[in-house]
Amino acid sequence: MTYCVGLLVDRGLVFMSDTRTNAGVDNISVVSKMRTWEVPGERFICLLSAGNLATTQSTISILEERRVEPEKRNPSILNQPSMFQTAQLVGDTLKDVIATTSPTGESASSRFTGSFILGGQIKGGRPRLFMIYPEGNFIEAGPDNPFFQIGEHKYGRPIIIRTYDRAMDLGDVAKLLVVSFDSTIRSNLSVGLPIDLQFYETDSLTGGYRHRFDQKDSYYRQISEGWSQSLKDAFDELPPFPHSVKRDR
Amino acid sequence: MTYCVGLLVDRGLVFMSDTRTNAGVDNISVVSKMRTWEVPGERFICLLSAGNLATTQSTISILEERRVEPEKRNPSILNQPSMFQTAQLVGDTLKDVIATTSPTGESASSRFTGSFILGGQIKGGRPRLFMIYPEGNFIEAGPDNPFFQIGEHKYGRPIIIRTYDRAMDLGDVAKLLVVSFDSTIRSNLSVGLPIDLQFYETDSLTGGYRHRFDQKDSYYRQISEGWSQSLKDAFDELPPFPHSVKRDR
Repeated sequence: MTYCVGLLVDRGLVFMSDTRTNAGVDNISVVSKMRTWEVPGERFICLLSAGNLATTQSTISILEERRVEPEKRNPSILNQPSMFQTAQLVGDTLKDVIATTSPTGESASSRFTGSFILGGQIKGGRPRLFMIYPEGNFIEAGPDNPFFQIGEHKYGRPIIIRTYDRAMDLGDVAKLLVVSFDSTIRSNLSVGLPIDLQFYETDSLTGGYRHRFDQKDSYYRQISEGWSQSLKDAFDELPPFPHSVKRDR
Repeated sequence: MTYCVGLLVDRGLVFMSDTRTNAGVDNISVVSKMRTWEVPGERFICLLSAGNLATTQSTISILEERRVEPEKRNPSILNQPSMFQTAQLVGDTLKDVIATTSPTGESASSRFTGSFILGGQIKGGRPRLFMIYPEGNFIEAGPDNPFFQIGEHKYGRPIIIRTYDRAMDLGDVAKLLVVSFDSTIRSNLSVGLPIDLQFYETDSLTGGYRHRFDQKDSYYRQISEGWSQSLKDAFDELPPFPHSVKRDR
């Protein structure tokens, strides 16, 4: 499976994605699920993908116009007037790819399904974040639903729900997502290191800091080990269960 | 859906289960998913259920011999020589019920599926904990896998993995499970209060403390609110993400 998160705060957007793909537990490999495009000063776009790898790669290849010779390419993903139109384009392309690949031609429950988180900013607009479904439609993040997760999202969700604050700076969001990813990776084999991180600062109109955390990353290890201890300490400080263990019924 | 946990520690067993059942989000009700039986001084048995309510209730009714007039009942669930045999009986009964109800007669992926967590102790043996599948087979908890979850298990799993210690006393396990349940209830509508708690102390051969947490339970509220703050504090104390937000690629 996969775990990807896109999160919106006042200061910008933070994206994180794992890199494990598998065709069965005996056939795993590392593939980045994060793609970015930019025209500095004009737009920045980041796309996170989950689902069938052939479907999502094919969608991205079409968005990049790789069917055309390199010198003639004018990637449609960089030519939309707004983030809304960009999301529409990604959704339509995804739906078409699935329709072409699926035995039934339209089933969204097909094994060839996929979904995306799309975020970015185009000059004149504000930073926007979308979740795009295999049916081609999409929803947008806002103050009430400031983040999207795709893939194996349940393990890492409680910590985001309890800790998220729209005033967080991007570094704190990165820290939060490292905790969320580490909780997921410890619980589920289908999500694995390395993980990719991408910052986007509001109104910068260019890609921000990017980092890959691998097994040896000292910050990742510090958080992973530190969080277990912090949780235990926090747990110990909660009030004890008030009833004695004696039988009393 | 459902969330149930059975957990084994040196001092005994702790069981916790939610009470929400639903046939769609517009049709929910409260039903306990925890059943206990005992012959004080001889045996104590606790069964937690998930899945189709007709299937699990029917299984329990058969185990209690409710097909027979009350005065002639000699419930088979209380007549097994060992916990292993008890698990076998529950598994066989469950499999039979599913086979009788399912359109195909044997499919485990049927909508009429169910599963159980079974724990307890019979004189002469030690406390044992099993997870019973709809196929009728089962696995047992041990030092490497000291707990079982059924139903909506993912949200509440990371905290158990990081905090469990076999030397915990039963009260600390209850506190841990309250945190795990609260994380799940905050993330998923299909799991809801009230939740049932049952202690079993090793070698007591009788049911221990039992409690139902509802919306107004002061300890539940204390933990639910306190844990959010504790998590935030623990999070703040983790080392900050070391890279500046400036663009550096």
